[in-house]
Amino acid sequence: MRFDAAAAVLTVLDQTRLPFEVAYLHAHSAADCVRLIRDMHVRGAPLIGLVAAAGMAIAARCDSSDRALAVAAAHLLDSRPTAVNLRWALQRMQQGLAGVAIGDRAETAAALLLQLERMEYDCCERIAGHGYELLRQRAQQRGGDAPLQVLTHCNAGWLATGAWGTALAPLYRAALEGLPLHVWVDETRPRNQGARLTAWELAQAGIDHTIIVDNCAGHLMQRGLVDLCIVGSDRTTRSGDVCNKIGTYQTALAAADNGIPFYVALPSSTIDWELDAGADIEIEARDPGEVLQQDGQCANGDAASVRMANPGSRALNYAFDVTPARLVTALISEHGVYQANSVSLGLLRAALQSAAKDRFVGVEPL
Amino acid sequence: MRFDAAAAVLTVLDQTRLPFEVAYLHAHSAADCVRLIRDMHVRGAPLIGLVAAAGMAIAARCDSSDRALAVAAAHLLDSRPTAVNLRWALQRMQQGLAGVAIGDRAETAAALLLQLERMEYDCCERIAGHGYELLRQRAQQRGGDAPLQVLTHCNAGWLATGAWGTALAPLYRAALEGLPLHVWVDETRPRNQGARLTAWELAQAGIDHTIIVDNCAGHLMQRGLVDLCIVGSDRTTRSGDVCNKIGTYQTALAAADNGIPFYVALPSSTIDWELDAGADIEIEARDPGEVLQQDGQCANGDAASVRMANPGSRALNYAFDVTPARLVTALISEHGVYQANSVSLGLLRAALQSAAKDRFVGVEPL
Repeated sequence: MRFDAAAAVLTVLDQTRLPFEVAYLHAHSAADCVRLIRDMHVRGAPLIGLVAAAGMAIAARCDSSDRALAVAAAHLLDSRPTAVNLRWALQRMQQGLAGVAIGDRAETAAALLLQLERMEYDCCERIAGHGYELLRQRAQQRGGDAPLQVLTHCNAGWLATGAWGTALAPLYRAALEGLPLHVWVDETRPRNQGARLTAWELAQAGIDHTIIVDNCAGHLMQRGLVDLCIVGSDRTTRSGDVCNKIGTYQTALAAADNGIPFYVALPSSTIDWELDAGADIEIEARDPGEVLQQDGQCANGDAASVRMANPGSRALNYAFDVTPARLVTALISEHGVYQANSVSLGLLRAALQSAAKDRFVGVEPL
Repeated sequence: MRFDAAAAVLTVLDQTRLPFEVAYLHAHSAADCVRLIRDMHVRGAPLIGLVAAAGMAIAARCDSSDRALAVAAAHLLDSRPTAVNLRWALQRMQQGLAGVAIGDRAETAAALLLQLERMEYDCCERIAGHGYELLRQRAQQRGGDAPLQVLTHCNAGWLATGAWGTALAPLYRAALEGLPLHVWVDETRPRNQGARLTAWELAQAGIDHTIIVDNCAGHLMQRGLVDLCIVGSDRTTRSGDVCNKIGTYQTALAAADNGIPFYVALPSSTIDWELDAGADIEIEARDPGEVLQQDGQCANGDAASVRMANPGSRALNYAFDVTPARLVTALISEHGVYQANSVSLGLLRAALQSAAKDRFVGVEPL
């Protein structure tokens, strides 16, 4: 994403048209930003947070009264229910603007957005380092010259964030460091973010990969073809329950059943410190058409949508599920690797509060 | 399927065109039958066995020499590797024809095929009864008036067999008996047999159902929305390891993690008495195009295929996986309900051998 502060225009890559077309969309209002998020032109918890923050920056340029900003924030918060970064980013913006004179708010909002973007970049960079260390150790532990076999679900790469990703960041670092690598890409039904976006990202980066149906992950693990799993998160509770793309739970069960490490990479802004049990997370139910229809490209290059289900049958389409903390080997955050439990995450919170005081002057940590 | 013995023509429903079109195909040779199986115009372990047997009956009509029959059997056996009923049905036909004068073989083959079809009908009927009893008990145990929530994967209904199915047979019986029922239909990527075929079958029968992506099964179980799972099998070892459509293993893991009964309904011909460990079953790897492309119907009713994966990325497409016996609550066979272990299945084998002697005069049990 790119934000032009002078013109108050946000430009993003339209992810609904990837991998077949690289096209950009421009948002000129907070309402435009709501549409970008709601219709999934942008997706991925960290990027959703940044686009919502950009919506606030645009709103502040138009009408920076308390009332106008509150309305914009409420609409942006409603755009998708599950990712917690959305709320987090909006709170940061609102808190950062609260004490500022109305005439200065547009400028401050643009500066706060830039700060969030830098923070995001920094997060991805640190997650890449911590995650890479785990990959390297796993390759060493396993021995041999064969590529490290990593499985991932959905897309938690640079498309999902403002920088080079969460779950994919350690893989990009590993590729840079010369660690031999092969990635199993879960297609990630129903929206196929794996087959469309992760495969596209990995192909761009020249990283060897193979697409599989989500159903196949467990079988590959049984055959000893997976050394390690790594996924992102849309929301993680303070006890370490991980809400992520639907199907993550089943993948984690298969990893546990086969003794394969299952890592979750996440910026700490993804942690919902107010929630203990994952079962309390609101799970978004999306349009059943996503299950019954498939969008793609015909042989002649035209975009098309085909129905592959029985006409007249209905569908239910939960977008996320919750992987219980007991199935998570560790959480890879920008502040290091933590165990998925309240005690370990309590340490992360403490680290976060002290670090936040140093790093984000003028914006109080939540 | 319908076999015209006089004309030596097999007629089957073309399952690749369902649910959008009800069209029939005619096989005039064993080679036609190989194509029907290989290209999945017919599918489902029991039906594959019957079509292979029909192939032998057609071959016997053309050239009933030992050599010609052996060649036909070898080609039919090669048509798909995983389902064991294929081998079983071919062995039945070959053994039944071995001692018969060449001039009488065509007639005998047609009679043997009819016998297999009747046996298949009988199997489904008995499985329906035994399975229904389990559904009824589960509904009683759960209490309340809400419909029993059953989850199934792939298609093990009448389309997969010569009669009303294996996994779906108890559901049809339950509907007839007036047991309130709702079925969660896993779409079953990559070929969507659930969304296409099971949903079509259930709609025909007026049974309430909802299609979900395979990824969603575990989440529904976590939410307490599944009372019981029931699936079919393409091959089950003598120790109770169940080979079935890819994704069955992950579904079974989720069921076990949530304390939900996981049943496998199968004719005993699906049991491979020669194999102990499921890991020794040959797993078919099919065309990667099945993962990368999606066939379906456009809004204007035309058939179309869309690509939904990143162009240039490759795919791997294992068609089956193995669910370890420890995850299977019980096996529902035509001879009753057995535990998924060597001791219990040894009792089934004994029952089978004595029953086979009574019921299939002239064809020695294997």
